[in-house]
Amino acid sequence: MANGFRKKILQKSTENSGFGDSASGRFIKKDGLPNVERKGVSMLNRFSWYHTMLELSTFRFLSYLVIAYILVNLIFALIYYLIGVEHLTGIDKRDAVNEFIDVFFFSSQTFTTVGYGRIAPVGFMASLVATFEAFLGLLTFAIATGLFYGRFSRPRAYLTFSDVALVAPFHNASALMFRLAPYKNNSLTNADVIVSAAIQVHEDGNHKSKFYSLKTQLSHINTLALNWTIVHAIDEDSPFYGFTEQDFKSTDIEIIVHVRAFDEVFSNTVVQRTSYASDEIIYGAVFTPMYYPSKDKRSTILDLEKINEYTMAEIPVLRDEK
Amino acid sequence: MANGFRKKILQKSTENSGFGDSASGRFIKKDGLPNVERKGVSMLNRFSWYHTMLELSTFRFLSYLVIAYILVNLIFALIYYLIGVEHLTGIDKRDAVNEFIDVFFFSSQTFTTVGYGRIAPVGFMASLVATFEAFLGLLTFAIATGLFYGRFSRPRAYLTFSDVALVAPFHNASALMFRLAPYKNNSLTNADVIVSAAIQVHEDGNHKSKFYSLKTQLSHINTLALNWTIVHAIDEDSPFYGFTEQDFKSTDIEIIVHVRAFDEVFSNTVVQRTSYASDEIIYGAVFTPMYYPSKDKRSTILDLEKINEYTMAEIPVLRDEK
Amino acid sequence: MANGFRKKILQKSTENSGFGDSASGRFIKKDGLPNVERKGVSMLNRFSWYHTMLELSTFRFLSYLVIAYILVNLIFALIYYLIGVEHLTGIDKRDAVNEFIDVFFFSSQTFTTVGYGRIAPVGFMASLVATFEAFLGLLTFAIATGLFYGRFSRPRAYLTFSDVALVAPFHNASALMFRLAPYKNNSLTNADVIVSAAIQVHEDGNHKSKFYSLKTQLSHINTLALNWTIVHAIDEDSPFYGFTEQDFKSTDIEIIVHVRAFDEVFSNTVVQRTSYASDEIIYGAVFTPMYYPSKDKRSTILDLEKINEYTMAEIPVLRDEK
Amino acid sequence: MANGFRKKILQKSTENSGFGDSASGRFIKKDGLPNVERKGVSMLNRFSWYHTMLELSTFRFLSYLVIAYILVNLIFALIYYLIGVEHLTGIDKRDAVNEFIDVFFFSSQTFTTVGYGRIAPVGFMASLVATFEAFLGLLTFAIATGLFYGRFSRPRAYLTFSDVALVAPFHNASALMFRLAPYKNNSLTNADVIVSAAIQVHEDGNHKSKFYSLKTQLSHINTLALNWTIVHAIDEDSPFYGFTEQDFKSTDIEIIVHVRAFDEVFSNTVVQRTSYASDEIIYGAVFTPMYYPSKDKRSTILDLEKINEYTMAEIPVLRDEK
Repeated sequence: MANGFRKKILQKSTENSGFGDSASGRFIKKDGLPNVERKGVSMLNRFSWYHTMLELSTFRFLSYLVIAYILVNLIFALIYYLIGVEHLTGIDKRDAVNEFIDVFFFSSQTFTTVGYGRIAPVGFMASLVATFEAFLGLLTFAIATGLFYGRFSRPRAYLTFSDVALVAPFHNASALMFRLAPYKNNSLTNADVIVSAAIQVHEDGNHKSKFYSLKTQLSHINTLALNWTIVHAIDEDSPFYGFTEQDFKSTDIEIIVHVRAFDEVFSNTVVQRTSYASDEIIYGAVFTPMYYPSKDKRSTILDLEKINEYTMAEIPVLRDEK
Repeated sequence: MANGFRKKILQKSTENSGFGDSASGRFIKKDGLPNVERKGVSMLNRFSWYHTMLELSTFRFLSYLVIAYILVNLIFALIYYLIGVEHLTGIDKRDAVNEFIDVFFFSSQTFTTVGYGRIAPVGFMASLVATFEAFLGLLTFAIATGLFYGRFSRPRAYLTFSDVALVAPFHNASALMFRLAPYKNNSLTNADVIVSAAIQVHEDGNHKSKFYSLKTQLSHINTLALNWTIVHAIDEDSPFYGFTEQDFKSTDIEIIVHVRAFDEVFSNTVVQRTSYASDEIIYGAVFTPMYYPSKDKRSTILDLEKINEYTMAEIPVLRDEK
Repeated sequence: MANGFRKKILQKSTENSGFGDSASGRFIKKDGLPNVERKGVSMLNRFSWYHTMLELSTFRFLSYLVIAYILVNLIFALIYYLIGVEHLTGIDKRDAVNEFIDVFFFSSQTFTTVGYGRIAPVGFMASLVATFEAFLGLLTFAIATGLFYGRFSRPRAYLTFSDVALVAPFHNASALMFRLAPYKNNSLTNADVIVSAAIQVHEDGNHKSKFYSLKTQLSHINTLALNWTIVHAIDEDSPFYGFTEQDFKSTDIEIIVHVRAFDEVFSNTVVQRTSYASDEIIYGAVFTPMYYPSKDKRSTILDLEKINEYTMAEIPVLRDEK
Repeated sequence: MANGFRKKILQKSTENSGFGDSASGRFIKKDGLPNVERKGVSMLNRFSWYHTMLELSTFRFLSYLVIAYILVNLIFALIYYLIGVEHLTGIDKRDAVNEFIDVFFFSSQTFTTVGYGRIAPVGFMASLVATFEAFLGLLTFAIATGLFYGRFSRPRAYLTFSDVALVAPFHNASALMFRLAPYKNNSLTNADVIVSAAIQVHEDGNHKSKFYSLKTQLSHINTLALNWTIVHAIDEDSPFYGFTEQDFKSTDIEIIVHVRAFDEVFSNTVVQRTSYASDEIIYGAVFTPMYYPSKDKRSTILDLEKINEYTMAEIPVLRDEK
């Protein structure tokens, strides 16, 4: 392949990727997050705790809640203990351990506002602390309510992407293809996809990342109910025009995918991103269909296990343009 | 009708429906959901439980809550019973049944944090379990709060569609018409409609679904306060151009309707979809008006009972274009 | 004024208002809601109770809550009373009135989960009902939490409009003007206005409403911090071209205004509508400025009391175009 | 510089800033809020209490909650005290102070619904007030829940802007530049920037503010993960064309910046505004890079401490166009 020819193609880079040419490593991680670390901000300012809480796994989120609950009760138990168990009625005063156990349970009964009253504050200090603890308990559960709601009402696209992108035969030439499908009982409409590529090029003796918008055959669909195969034809406008199998292997490529759709239950725009690196691009392969009519021909079945199924296929040789 | 003529019209199909040509059965069910079943995902991953909870009927949602409440209390009652009723004060110890009844009620008093204290934990284990149950109770109601809010704040269009679409006389030719109206005290503005058709065609000896965008006379209105009759003129650009009454009956047609509007109370975009199959298209009929001035001429009355009222009307014969 | 000339102008009507030509009375009420009554739906279906709850005044909303609280407690008190006060401990059994008062307070202590325990259930039936009441109480407060949040997080534009629209001198001709201003500490950006007019015309011997889009000098502003005067120049494209003061008075006109903006606190689009009828249009007047520099010249003062202030002004006579 | 030449440039002002030419002082404060005071509305109407609550600092918000909690309990304590401590069981009746302390704690135990029952109402009036207080307590925490959720779910851009804007050498001429970067773990995509300038000009002997849209080299980027330098080339279309260092110093300039982006966690549009006044514009300087590859070259590091770092640089002299 003529280097001059390639160079001309590669000059059509775009600038609005938001990444600079001296950035390094994968730009978008497989899970769609940018591969950027931040420095120069204090820990406290670096994280939005709300974003953090929303992105925790359910298990960790619940664990944190339980741990916080136990800690708060230990602290208040200690305070009640220091104030003195004589300020509480109904305490089992056999020994210090039993006393501490009882103030711990008194604390939890106050924090959750269950307040059986078997143990109850009588002195001023214990009453005052209990007054504050019950208040704190309610505020804490107010925050927990908000976090739970924030977590499960957070709009998500619930899309699954094929693990690899394929370079497949397409209209006597080739096309870069990957596919995606919604995997939950959500209803997506008005879906749009934006595909771009980051390619490492030699320029003036330096390695630089250049960014390209990749045109797709169909960048908008009305209803995203079945799988959607995104097709980028490798024609004269493509930065991959003239790429051989070897070129795909030896060049540092990253395909960045950004999908937006409207979810009818959240009534909100949902987005999902992913990326394909050089080693996730298979040259000469086509996806096998992943949906088929149901037995009674009355509905369509989408088989999500097949999303990564493909068969090898020969790519037509690009005839040189004269 | 000339087959070649029809074939030419039917080639103007669109590809961005999101459905494939080998999908089968109705594409969009009458309630607007895609007629697709998913396979290859585990039950746990196939459903977004939040979407599921939001789409349950109110009766089933409340029933699930009550059942869950009873189950949780039964489980905790069993735990308290196994720990031993001697760890609780105030238990009616006449017999095992009374004991179990009392621990059940103790459990419910703990879970709801009502905590009368007539029955109260004294032993370590019972106290510990109660501590956890009260905490669980509060988190459960935090989740319930979120679900209630999610359910009733979920933006919905509250549109009612005519049961049938009509092929009605229109400007010396004909038009496909159906109508919709908001039926609640919601305020919709900036309404848009997208109409498409799926038609089963014979191609290369196979049945295939082809998709067509249907142009409408008015695809946007400012205020959706009265009924809105969507009119698709059957002219040269329509895939139904030249269709006879018989063609409408014998062809497998599906009209897919997608309405978007802005609701001023939710301050959100709301969408609603529906579809009309071949047997829901009446040839040669016009809708009767469904709104009229009030008696005092000071406001307009929209009679929603009339949404399906139509009278038969003759369709002008299409003169052949030479 | 030549009737033929007027007729030509009035033919440029638009169809996408969403109102029909046989609708009657004001289309949009002063508060922005469409002047339409719905018939043919049952009461239950005609109202979205969530929309209704959000649009209640704060006083009525709180009153409904208090009334519901009292009613629920009366009902449960009756149930406990019928079950028998011997199923409750601590009841004041002097007479039936005192008994009922005590079961009423027991009910409220259960419903709010305060559960002092001075009165507590001992029998099976009373315990069962209390179990259910505490559960119902928590769900009710879950719903109340959602409604409170829905009410105060509901995006609103908080715009105030001038009570009247003016026909003011403008560039040697005239213009229809009205103004609006944000009156709260909200931050509106990217504001758009859509103005249309409904004019009653005689056509074929009938009164009919025709709808017109009114072009404005500036239909978009970046920051809506001061007042915004909307100016519709009455030129050849205006349906009011050639209207005399008498025409404005004798014709049945309605100016319909729709404002959209982005609120930075709600992070949501907010909309507000209003309308001006014939008797709310003043011919020959100009608004007086309503903002001025502060004394220290370091900020600008917006005086909202002046929004309706105007002075009379002569309208240049329209020279006939020949 | 020819005054006629400048005048011609300065006439290309825009009108859709939303600020008038007789407004005074900075238009947009550094924190992005408009520099406008409102008059003529009562205090009650001037503030949206929800906007106010959302914009309070966390410390003040929590302080207000605590103060409100103490006040409410003091008021209810007074009511119970006036009703008479004989209507409550378990009160420490040694003296008036102890009585008041106990009714205060009874109030707090009722308001938080902790209801130990050590102190419990027995008389009608105390029971009635307690019934109402528990109800009020739950509603208050319902509101607090909503406010907490509103506060932490409020979409924010979390952008940091450079303190100053620079006039930097650019393509043989100069450009006005400033930069911004996201500083938290939020994910911004589809970012847009709108830049405008307010310039004080002499017109007809008066000082007037004129507004100009500033074109930028790149007004949209796909992913806002690194810093974004906004570049406004000072060419013939710029209102600053021909400005010398002295002009920048002596003219009253305000650069108004408005950034919009889509946050993937909030799934919402977020906006942030700021402004640069004359004394925040440095003539003849360029920003130093603020991101670089990580040591292992596998990711990119964004150093937010460097956002204000720049070095001086000479601006090419503008050759007069003839």
